[in-house]
Amino acid sequence: MNILITGGAGFVGQRLAMECLKRGNLELDGKPSPAITNILLADNAEPPFWHDGLREHELVTTSFGDISDEAYVKSLFNEEIHAVFHLASIVSGHGEQDFDLAMRVNLDGARYLFEAIRAQKNNCRVVFTSSVAAFGGDAMPETVSDYTKQTPMTTYGMTKVIGELLVNDYSRKGFFDGRSARLPTVIVRPGKPNLAASSFVSGLFREPLNGEPCVIPVDPSQLMPVLGYRSIINGIIKLAELPATDLGSDRGVGLPAFNATVQELMDALKNAAGNQHLGEHVMEKDETIAKICAGWPQQADTTRGLSLGLPMESSIEEIVHCYIEDYLDGTGS
Amino acid sequence: MNILITGGAGFVGQRLAMECLKRGNLELDGKPSPAITNILLADNAEPPFWHDGLREHELVTTSFGDISDEAYVKSLFNEEIHAVFHLASIVSGHGEQDFDLAMRVNLDGARYLFEAIRAQKNNCRVVFTSSVAAFGGDAMPETVSDYTKQTPMTTYGMTKVIGELLVNDYSRKGFFDGRSARLPTVIVRPGKPNLAASSFVSGLFREPLNGEPCVIPVDPSQLMPVLGYRSIINGIIKLAELPATDLGSDRGVGLPAFNATVQELMDALKNAAGNQHLGEHVMEKDETIAKICAGWPQQADTTRGLSLGLPMESSIEEIVHCYIEDYLDGTGS
Repeated sequence: MNILITGGAGFVGQRLAMECLKRGNLELDGKPSPAITNILLADNAEPPFWHDGLREHELVTTSFGDISDEAYVKSLFNEEIHAVFHLASIVSGHGEQDFDLAMRVNLDGARYLFEAIRAQKNNCRVVFTSSVAAFGGDAMPETVSDYTKQTPMTTYGMTKVIGELLVNDYSRKGFFDGRSARLPTVIVRPGKPNLAASSFVSGLFREPLNGEPCVIPVDPSQLMPVLGYRSIINGIIKLAELPATDLGSDRGVGLPAFNATVQELMDALKNAAGNQHLGEHVMEKDETIAKICAGWPQQADTTRGLSLGLPMESSIEEIVHCYIEDYLDGTGS
Repeated sequence: MNILITGGAGFVGQRLAMECLKRGNLELDGKPSPAITNILLADNAEPPFWHDGLREHELVTTSFGDISDEAYVKSLFNEEIHAVFHLASIVSGHGEQDFDLAMRVNLDGARYLFEAIRAQKNNCRVVFTSSVAAFGGDAMPETVSDYTKQTPMTTYGMTKVIGELLVNDYSRKGFFDGRSARLPTVIVRPGKPNLAASSFVSGLFREPLNGEPCVIPVDPSQLMPVLGYRSIINGIIKLAELPATDLGSDRGVGLPAFNATVQELMDALKNAAGNQHLGEHVMEKDETIAKICAGWPQQADTTRGLSLGLPMESSIEEIVHCYIEDYLDGTGS
């Protein structure tokens, strides 16, 4: 089977590709799929870093272009694609700076992609990555779930809700077999901070572990749902594999999450790091970021995702240990 | 002030224009607006009928074109527009037949319109008409409200939810001052049946009052939220007039509605018609229409709309009397 990952050069995209390669195939509807023959990683530009060996892997090809260019998107389907992971997106903070870009990439891009998949007429398996930023607004309950009305307070979140709606309708019409994975904040992202308003949530682990300070732009009491990247990847794959009948008419599923305060995240880092020297957390509120984060859900009830068998780590400390293993002590991938 | 009504040649569009002309201005945020100087009725084609005197009114102009043509939409803004009522839409049954047309007209069309309004930079007042078809799916509660997750089961409903999301985000960004009026089934539409799956709900009053039979394609026990067209029009105008601060971050408001069974609607007709001879109701189930209607909300809790002062008739019989007055006995407009 051929797999396409948009946003495939990003952190989540690369790790998703690595996990697919490790598995060799998917377990679609409980049955082993044909072996993976190619993974096409499409992205807008060369990434800051490639995970070791990924780009050179014989089953991996790359393509760089603009997903808001319809002809480019069509060109990704020169070979038949059997499963698509649509991760490409303008992120939250960036979308607040540039509404038109967010609309072009996140909405027009998704539509071009979904139309190209539909044109294959092969009931392609599709996972679209949504976000807890799909929730928001003055009527948002303290705890959100798969049954909570989505009234986002960022353009990013708005385009994510639209993506979920399109996935449901394209699936209902039989144009493809889609699912939406609603992601909590992913920790710990390696590399550099990005324009996501939640970027500091990875930074608060990553920078101190590198012996560097990290500015915390929100109150330590700020609650947010978070999940480790291994569970994010495994959850996205699991959601692709489930039979459609397990999902019902609403194919948008919140991945499991820890509902933790920023203080709890900082404490977990200290617990996990043991005697290691850590860079400092510098409390320096940024009203713009604090406002965006305060407008997101504080807590997620992810009972549905858990009952569908989507995974989560046992603790935030475990997530930190995984990050150290994968990125810092040289034993991981 | 200049007003644009898309779908302006339709039944609701024409009556909305007539009501605006009768009032002479709007009461925006509780203050009288400047007098209405022009109402531009834009639609895709000449309608089957014009209400008496509307087309010839000195303050009315008409424009016919395709709202999914960006250049056409821009041409509607040659004069500055101060309030827009966006009613144009492919209806539910039609959208199920032609997905691509529904996407072009309902989604692309809305985006072209919203961008043209934004380009004016005049904080234009905008009302978008959504629908109870915005709700649906296997997790839909028996009673829906402004706080219910919108998981539509028609392409029409899906595009309506997207419209509500766009109105919220364009308003949040300050591109215009928008509101979405979520309409229940409108009764009693005059004229001919249309491609809306709910078309028979007007037919069950209209045809018998004309001495003609009406086929009822659903079970008489089918529940649905309905509202008379006078309250629909007055509700849309009231929603345009309210201060944004009354609405909060979610500007989508369900108009008040009667939750009635089809049997109750047929009974109300008989009560209202008195001794008048009526054409028959012919029970003849159409599985396609029955399925679409059964997938819509059975009951709407419209407490929020009512508390915002949106109107409703005192009974379904009153709605029938209004229809007779307006369209049958020659005393109405």
